[in-house]
Amino acid sequence: MSVTTSIHEATAADVSKAVQKAHEAFALYKATSPAQRVVFLKKIAEEINAIGDSLIAITQQETKLPEARLKGERTRTTNQIQLFAQLVQEGSWVRAIIDTGNPDRQPLPKPDIRQMQMPLGVVGVFGASNFPYAFSVAGGDTIAALAAGCPVVYKAHPGHPATSDLVAQAILKAAKDTGMPDGVFSMVQGGIEVGQSLVNHPLVKAIAFTGSFRGGKALYDTAAKREEPIPVYAEMGSVNPVFVLPGILKQKGKAVAESLATSNRLGAGQFCTNPGIVVLEQSAEADAFLDVYAASHKAAAGEPMLTETIYNQYNQSLQKLNMMADLKMIACGVKGDGAALAVPHTFVVDGKTFLQQPHLQEEVFGPASIHVLADSREQVLEIARALQGQLTASVWGADTDWEAFASLLTVLQEKAGRVIINGVPTGVEVGHAMVHGGPYPATTDSKTTSVGSQAIYRFTRPVCFQDFPAALLPAELKNENTGGILRMVNGVYTRENV
Amino acid sequence: MSVTTSIHEATAADVSKAVQKAHEAFALYKATSPAQRVVFLKKIAEEINAIGDSLIAITQQETKLPEARLKGERTRTTNQIQLFAQLVQEGSWVRAIIDTGNPDRQPLPKPDIRQMQMPLGVVGVFGASNFPYAFSVAGGDTIAALAAGCPVVYKAHPGHPATSDLVAQAILKAAKDTGMPDGVFSMVQGGIEVGQSLVNHPLVKAIAFTGSFRGGKALYDTAAKREEPIPVYAEMGSVNPVFVLPGILKQKGKAVAESLATSNRLGAGQFCTNPGIVVLEQSAEADAFLDVYAASHKAAAGEPMLTETIYNQYNQSLQKLNMMADLKMIACGVKGDGAALAVPHTFVVDGKTFLQQPHLQEEVFGPASIHVLADSREQVLEIARALQGQLTASVWGADTDWEAFASLLTVLQEKAGRVIINGVPTGVEVGHAMVHGGPYPATTDSKTTSVGSQAIYRFTRPVCFQDFPAALLPAELKNENTGGILRMVNGVYTRENV
Repeated sequence: MSVTTSIHEATAADVSKAVQKAHEAFALYKATSPAQRVVFLKKIAEEINAIGDSLIAITQQETKLPEARLKGERTRTTNQIQLFAQLVQEGSWVRAIIDTGNPDRQPLPKPDIRQMQMPLGVVGVFGASNFPYAFSVAGGDTIAALAAGCPVVYKAHPGHPATSDLVAQAILKAAKDTGMPDGVFSMVQGGIEVGQSLVNHPLVKAIAFTGSFRGGKALYDTAAKREEPIPVYAEMGSVNPVFVLPGILKQKGKAVAESLATSNRLGAGQFCTNPGIVVLEQSAEADAFLDVYAASHKAAAGEPMLTETIYNQYNQSLQKLNMMADLKMIACGVKGDGAALAVPHTFVVDGKTFLQQPHLQEEVFGPASIHVLADSREQVLEIARALQGQLTASVWGADTDWEAFASLLTVLQEKAGRVIINGVPTGVEVGHAMVHGGPYPATTDSKTTSVGSQAIYRFTRPVCFQDFPAALLPAELKNENTGGILRMVNGVYTRENV
Repeated sequence: MSVTTSIHEATAADVSKAVQKAHEAFALYKATSPAQRVVFLKKIAEEINAIGDSLIAITQQETKLPEARLKGERTRTTNQIQLFAQLVQEGSWVRAIIDTGNPDRQPLPKPDIRQMQMPLGVVGVFGASNFPYAFSVAGGDTIAALAAGCPVVYKAHPGHPATSDLVAQAILKAAKDTGMPDGVFSMVQGGIEVGQSLVNHPLVKAIAFTGSFRGGKALYDTAAKREEPIPVYAEMGSVNPVFVLPGILKQKGKAVAESLATSNRLGAGQFCTNPGIVVLEQSAEADAFLDVYAASHKAAAGEPMLTETIYNQYNQSLQKLNMMADLKMIACGVKGDGAALAVPHTFVVDGKTFLQQPHLQEEVFGPASIHVLADSREQVLEIARALQGQLTASVWGADTDWEAFASLLTVLQEKAGRVIINGVPTGVEVGHAMVHGGPYPATTDSKTTSVGSQAIYRFTRPVCFQDFPAALLPAELKNENTGGILRMVNGVYTRENV
């Protein structure tokens, strides 16, 4: 197998056909039982594993990502599928709420009202370049939508077409083998026009996207201008600010510098959680921190990037930063043998300049970071308040720091989806409690996550059933709680029958 | 007291001042304990009741709504406040999720991840004309936002300025008496410009609106074009289709006709849940149904409407319908003594015409309905599929009807926020399970409700805490579950400590 596999470039008509088929599948797919959906999801994981290491080999060719990383990401992806399978199997995720009626209430009888989360309809998913498995064909968005009961039309990222094709075949085989309706999943390959057709199709009810700010914002704007606007869940990355407080700088500033420098270079800096801004109060310890950080980057070799476009954009960003008089470059890594390798960079700027130049908050996708030296604790807070929305914000502190910086933590909770103490932002744990999201411009919808089980709610809405005869209610809302799911009944959480 | 109370017309500067004050209040208000917020909410209800019946008298003058209706609505409004107070007191609404860490995990330690819902920030609320209490100053949106921990800047509806002023004073007194921060609630009076200033203010983080499609859509478009787009929860009404199936038509078609005609005239038809479209299969029983419905409307007297604008719009809508050749007017109520009274109207159209003319789905705000006679069961389904998004959809059926019309119920669940069996859509029960929402154009966000306790989630987003020392975690996420709230801990729902 090789990357020369012929990849079909979709037309608007192909997109329309895929969406139409998905819409027809919806009526059947949403009627499948949780047990049936669990079998389907688990089969997807099985089929991905069944491709074997030829998948890893193809993806290595397409993305230049190392084998170990790809094997880890494959495991993460199939674990994620298992997490959603568990969620659907347990069943309480539908958030069943029952308020029983009372025909004798005065002055008017009280109706019987029941609600649960139901699938939205056809979902369009746009994959990312930097996670060819976990944020791609069978990534979090696709699996969350399928778990919720929504058919998916997936637009492949052009960075790894053959990988996408293999994983799409795995999903299609799983769907067929487990008796899912034709059209429950389709993949289209193509560029911006294909993407626009997908967002504009009247039968598409939600869009999920992981990628650049420009790409995500364009989809958001398109969707908002539709005759029927639809939600767009675009995860557009961020600079993931890190605050290193005076106490910990004294205690183990050098170790923190090493951790952050390594995190900044991880995967050639191609993570949306890459720590791109580090804020410190001026001090001798801050200088020592910078020395260690800079030395670490200087000693590091350049690494290949995912695509030539990303490599070129990284270098353009560096050029722009290098031209700024107020910004000092304090480290440049090892250039290597002339190949197109992303070289680590470190810059320093003072707090006042950073506050005056909001463009310094723009994401640099690659192994580079800007270190901001604040002239006071108050200026540290001012910088925190001036931050745009972020996926993550991190604080490194010692026990002695927290009292003085209590309000910093409060401010960062308003700025980010995830706040981390004494840890690096790279590495997004897949679980129930994860929030991989955050206020704009990190995402276009701060109310959801793209990683973890709660991502299922991107693709559902509550539907309310009033005075339904028992036979017509969904299983989750009948008096007899056959699934034993947790429900709120007349304001009380219970797994009992009504 | 009289309606001549001087009402201050706000300027953009007033709006900006109110939002700035609200933003400053946010830091303090979100730090209040659930117990403190409960005291505040209950005090609001108490202060509204303390105004006494002079409030009812003023509102009668401003809205022409009858005394009994207003007293009922006042009770509903204070009950709604109590519901949110209970929700905050019980505490589980924050959806705490805890995935504990494992430092020994290989190849990497597992971090400790915890999430809960946190308030968004300053919320702008636009009140409705047709519910001067329940969807106005201290209505569902204001109270849900305050319950969530968000300060509110409220834009009063010009239809009842003196009422708004009295209720605003009640909230302000409650805030002061219970030690809430200055600025936690403000009211501005004014027109479209004041509203636009509110939506465009960078410190406003969400908008809630109840009113017309035109008004809601304008706010949605404005918010989408902001430098930082924000969510707009606009409830814009709908035509609330009703399907009357053959079996029940035979069984008790005339009683159903009486119920629906009464529901259509309730409050001079000025409810967003007013049943505006009734779909029937052609039959002798359908004709009998129409006769009873028409007779009921013909015998009914016109009633005053909320404002002159609404009255004029109602008559313009009627004129437009009367001019349509394919639409037959079969009932016109009693005109009365020449005052500006909304006269009930009934129209009939065949299914084919209805399908060809989508504008017949536009809401007529007033006591009018269009009855669609379908030529077959298949056409009934086709009409259901052609419907736009609705707040409600109702089906009247007998036991013998359900098998043949199973797919009708499925389709309606995709079209509406609430599906009702054998009941009228008017009357929105305030409880935990209610969904007063639905797909566009009924609302701009089908994922939330504007009535019932779940409305609190309009004004929150999940925030994730990674590896926080116990002392720095919010109370809801500490190992010791002092509030005894329901939490998901490592995938299991429990009220135990971690």
